[in-house]
Amino acid sequence: MTAKLKTAVLGATGYSGLELTRILLRHPRLEKPMLLRRPADNATAADLADVFPVLSGNGGYPLHPLAWPSLKEQGVQLLFLATPHETSRSIVPEAMAQGLRVIDLSGAWRLKQAEHRAIYNFQDANAVRAAEITEKAVYGLPELNADRVANAALVANPGCYATSVILALAPLLKAGIVARKRGIVSDSKSGVSGAGKEPTAKTHFVSVADNLSAYSLFNHRHVGEMVEQLDLTEQELIFTPHLLPIPRGILSTIYVHLNRKMTPTELDSCLRTSYSGKRWVRVFQTPKLPQVNFSLHTNYCDLGFCLADDGERLVLISCLDNLLKGAAGQAVQNMNLMYGWAEDEGLQ
Amino acid sequence: MTAKLKTAVLGATGYSGLELTRILLRHPRLEKPMLLRRPADNATAADLADVFPVLSGNGGYPLHPLAWPSLKEQGVQLLFLATPHETSRSIVPEAMAQGLRVIDLSGAWRLKQAEHRAIYNFQDANAVRAAEITEKAVYGLPELNADRVANAALVANPGCYATSVILALAPLLKAGIVARKRGIVSDSKSGVSGAGKEPTAKTHFVSVADNLSAYSLFNHRHVGEMVEQLDLTEQELIFTPHLLPIPRGILSTIYVHLNRKMTPTELDSCLRTSYSGKRWVRVFQTPKLPQVNFSLHTNYCDLGFCLADDGERLVLISCLDNLLKGAAGQAVQNMNLMYGWAEDEGLQ
Amino acid sequence: MTAKLKTAVLGATGYSGLELTRILLRHPRLEKPMLLRRPADNATAADLADVFPVLSGNGGYPLHPLAWPSLKEQGVQLLFLATPHETSRSIVPEAMAQGLRVIDLSGAWRLKQAEHRAIYNFQDANAVRAAEITEKAVYGLPELNADRVANAALVANPGCYATSVILALAPLLKAGIVARKRGIVSDSKSGVSGAGKEPTAKTHFVSVADNLSAYSLFNHRHVGEMVEQLDLTEQELIFTPHLLPIPRGILSTIYVHLNRKMTPTELDSCLRTSYSGKRWVRVFQTPKLPQVNFSLHTNYCDLGFCLADDGERLVLISCLDNLLKGAAGQAVQNMNLMYGWAEDEGLQ
Amino acid sequence: MTAKLKTAVLGATGYSGLELTRILLRHPRLEKPMLLRRPADNATAADLADVFPVLSGNGGYPLHPLAWPSLKEQGVQLLFLATPHETSRSIVPEAMAQGLRVIDLSGAWRLKQAEHRAIYNFQDANAVRAAEITEKAVYGLPELNADRVANAALVANPGCYATSVILALAPLLKAGIVARKRGIVSDSKSGVSGAGKEPTAKTHFVSVADNLSAYSLFNHRHVGEMVEQLDLTEQELIFTPHLLPIPRGILSTIYVHLNRKMTPTELDSCLRTSYSGKRWVRVFQTPKLPQVNFSLHTNYCDLGFCLADDGERLVLISCLDNLLKGAAGQAVQNMNLMYGWAEDEGLQ
Repeated sequence: MTAKLKTAVLGATGYSGLELTRILLRHPRLEKPMLLRRPADNATAADLADVFPVLSGNGGYPLHPLAWPSLKEQGVQLLFLATPHETSRSIVPEAMAQGLRVIDLSGAWRLKQAEHRAIYNFQDANAVRAAEITEKAVYGLPELNADRVANAALVANPGCYATSVILALAPLLKAGIVARKRGIVSDSKSGVSGAGKEPTAKTHFVSVADNLSAYSLFNHRHVGEMVEQLDLTEQELIFTPHLLPIPRGILSTIYVHLNRKMTPTELDSCLRTSYSGKRWVRVFQTPKLPQVNFSLHTNYCDLGFCLADDGERLVLISCLDNLLKGAAGQAVQNMNLMYGWAEDEGLQ
Repeated sequence: MTAKLKTAVLGATGYSGLELTRILLRHPRLEKPMLLRRPADNATAADLADVFPVLSGNGGYPLHPLAWPSLKEQGVQLLFLATPHETSRSIVPEAMAQGLRVIDLSGAWRLKQAEHRAIYNFQDANAVRAAEITEKAVYGLPELNADRVANAALVANPGCYATSVILALAPLLKAGIVARKRGIVSDSKSGVSGAGKEPTAKTHFVSVADNLSAYSLFNHRHVGEMVEQLDLTEQELIFTPHLLPIPRGILSTIYVHLNRKMTPTELDSCLRTSYSGKRWVRVFQTPKLPQVNFSLHTNYCDLGFCLADDGERLVLISCLDNLLKGAAGQAVQNMNLMYGWAEDEGLQ
Repeated sequence: MTAKLKTAVLGATGYSGLELTRILLRHPRLEKPMLLRRPADNATAADLADVFPVLSGNGGYPLHPLAWPSLKEQGVQLLFLATPHETSRSIVPEAMAQGLRVIDLSGAWRLKQAEHRAIYNFQDANAVRAAEITEKAVYGLPELNADRVANAALVANPGCYATSVILALAPLLKAGIVARKRGIVSDSKSGVSGAGKEPTAKTHFVSVADNLSAYSLFNHRHVGEMVEQLDLTEQELIFTPHLLPIPRGILSTIYVHLNRKMTPTELDSCLRTSYSGKRWVRVFQTPKLPQVNFSLHTNYCDLGFCLADDGERLVLISCLDNLLKGAAGQAVQNMNLMYGWAEDEGLQ
Repeated sequence: MTAKLKTAVLGATGYSGLELTRILLRHPRLEKPMLLRRPADNATAADLADVFPVLSGNGGYPLHPLAWPSLKEQGVQLLFLATPHETSRSIVPEAMAQGLRVIDLSGAWRLKQAEHRAIYNFQDANAVRAAEITEKAVYGLPELNADRVANAALVANPGCYATSVILALAPLLKAGIVARKRGIVSDSKSGVSGAGKEPTAKTHFVSVADNLSAYSLFNHRHVGEMVEQLDLTEQELIFTPHLLPIPRGILSTIYVHLNRKMTPTELDSCLRTSYSGKRWVRVFQTPKLPQVNFSLHTNYCDLGFCLADDGERLVLISCLDNLLKGAAGQAVQNMNLMYGWAEDEGLQ
């Protein structure tokens, strides 16, 4: 019996942080994780159950300030960051210097190309070091990058929208069957937890309920991830996110023109072969299609499609739980890869 | 043809203020109302349609700062306050000194008895004047106080919960059939607009959706109005408000023990007689009961009841739209009384 | 003072029928409408307020069986059909033979081309007569066909999705600026009332809440209307409807490639000019975009857009209330045109 | 290592049946359960994943017809019934004759007293046998009846509302501190899954969303359970259920007069002592109160209270997930007791 791994979570007080903490608590390979307040957190909450009463009653979840010596003392080897990207950007260099492996759920280290990173407007204290770390960071989409994740010191956990779009498109683009120049459209819809826990006019119940709105047209941070991972130009992809009146879940409706006539069977085969043996992708058999609530509270990304009679116009549907496969679940899947455990350990 | 009345709305940028403005705009007896920013409003919104795009496209709704000379210049005679109670408390003395009639939608002037007012902790600049105004203020529940409203200089428009509870109980208490000493319970549930437009952790979509919560147990501001208007002691009434995952609407489930056995027919008669000729109260015939969405977007208060076989245990159901009969609609109903117009003018 | 028009509504017991009835009841040019049960309705409901308690308390709304002599006796001149398309298909020939003008809210008479009609699989008793009526029927989109509506004996009121898509695209297609061969995509989302009042597994609250689903891919009945009215081929338009967890409202996100570089100002001008003087279309100024709840409970179709920096890739947003501009409100707008009244009479 | 238990589920195609199946599938003491169609089920669904796509992709869940020989052949020892009460009433006698232990989630065998059973109007084929079984059936509320459950041949799993009310009141009634003659009120609110999966006018999304309604006043089936288990008269308890616009979850607000003045500390102690060592009841510390979403997707019943300053008027809040502690989770908790396993096995 190997010793259990000691992990810490910085930012357990956010939505993704809570989900992550709950998974880590029941993960059979782990000791109880150390929970760290974000620097910006109100220091008055002494226990995570004070923030999320769903955790009440079954032992304590003390929140600690971030202090490197105490992490060392506790034997922490892996640090999860469920923090705003600015925070991740400033903390990762020190965490790596401390010899910790890091899985960062924010957008701080996902992008290799400077023009895609520009939208974040990072203010790095040490630009040279930041460039080195960017170089080493592995984009943690396990279905595409399993080998590199396994050996990563820093995993940049993908964005929720990006995961839904990349997993749907990657097999088709790799197969070379997409008429990229005709343009790909992803019309994506997300529940409100994707907007974070901060109360704003946009997340007020009365603003969201009985409503639907599009936002960040031609201007969303996740587009950079999509085009980098799919090797597209920004011209080739239109991505439009929408805010749904539901707490969690993403559905992306993706429009593609094929560069040759295909049959549904061929397409099904393309997707199914690509994800053969991949534990957390489900391909639905035409004419069945995924819906948001099929994957809620699971780590699945569900894929389905409908091909027009002409065999060229294709609609893909991609669904996932933005807090799990789109954030915390995927982070744990990455951890499992990094430590050689089964991909669904702790996630079933 | 009489000249039309000129009104002004202070606080059109809140939920009740918007509803009020929309009614005033289509009210046949009024000139276009003058819209005033609340002192605390961000001055950048120049037009109410910038705040509420539902108003777009059909002429402008300019927002003005509050300035007494310009109200006078515009010929404003009646001022509506859709403001926090502290603001109303500080503004009303000056407004009355300016010769304006005032309908205040806040809780600032509803309570006659100091012990009920204590929960508000008012900080009056001039306590003597505040006491005089309190004396004169008329509690604007038109079904009970029509005559006094007609002549009021200052109408204190009732609270939304209070309206739903008082209208259900008043006929029974007046008839002397309630076993008051056994205790009356009002278990009330409200949509989120009742909590105001300010974004807080409690009004975040993720906190409210798929949830229900009780709050302010034995400690809600509206209890004072209920016991004053119904001539109850605080001991005789338990009021528990709950936050519903809906944008608007209130349902109060009210539990009463009768002091003698009655039949459903007698009870129906008691309610129906009390509200005979009252345009905005509907009594549902047993076994039909009101539901929240029957009165949404109307000025109705809907009442229904179910009497146990023993003829003594009674459940009343009272529903209304918290923004209309619970706020803006009732304010207009009061205005109609103050100016001698039909009670449903502008409200159909 | 001209005599008021007498109308009748067949199918007042459905969602659109209720909305229509409520508008007709307050329309200043009309007598109280005659309300007719649909042949399939349960005959036990004697009054529309029994079906929709929101109507309680303010006079009766008796439901009558459909009988031509009694329509004649009542002096009905205009008949609204809020019925399933099969019912409309079988009733319209007789209604026209009776000399009535008809506004049909169903899909029975919207399509001129047989291949688009095939999806309905109509079983006409008299195919020749059906063909004649089809020829005469006017597609009742007032912004495009005002003149023909004015003189129509039969108005085929457009589908809700079709209205949202056609109004967004018509100005651009007319201006010849759309690269049609690259394909147009409309990703549309609708509230549940669009699926009708019949309880089914798909409309069960638990199936819809916290969920989003796509349906009828490449196979929705409204596509025929869109391509006929916009003069497109079916190849040129992909339409994907989705079921939103809201009671009412539609948002269409429409993707277009332009055939030449344009500026936002030019596009704004194209849309604004097209709808100049049109009472019920609002064009939002970039970067403002419509949201579903801006047009709820109104007869507006709200349009907005965002153009990519390349000046060629365009996203249009089109919102409306499916029961009003998408059904009952538009029917009344058509009636206003047919009788020479202001386009917003009864609809403000 | 003991052999694993073989179970079967009749009625896996309902909401409770699905939840139960999901728990049984991951329960470490069980073999994969045998899934049985209800007699009334459409026989076309061959696999539970066809009914609930959330189960897709991870091995099959074949549905079998109910046939006693095949249960014997499979070695089934424990049968769960997630069936309508009429079905349970007719099946249990044969199941017990077959030597199976049974946990019945329906109301068929919960009530000992004939007058409480009358509301169900059971039509027993063999009334003598039914009476014998009724005698033996154990009301499966583990916190109150653990010993009897452990040895039961037939467990009648409690109703969802009943669980929430009984767990809140039992400690106070046992302590003799309730002024029962003054009347106890439980104002309870439930999500829509409590109404079952059958589509009806009442469960249509448009009927439920943006709404709240009370139903079954003085006439709900669960009242009999409450008064029998709490040893109350029907006169002493008023229970009013309401339908909430959420998929799942129950909150009961319970009003009690105490027969002597108490302090919050004394009350807290009364509740906390009663549930000391009870794994699935959480007592919230005043002034904290449970909310519906704290217990969703868990097997907890959460209790909290607020005592008026007079020390006599008490409001209790009781929350649970109607599909878990109110149905499937509690059934598994009962199974754990029946086989001597830890009370949270399979439920964490």
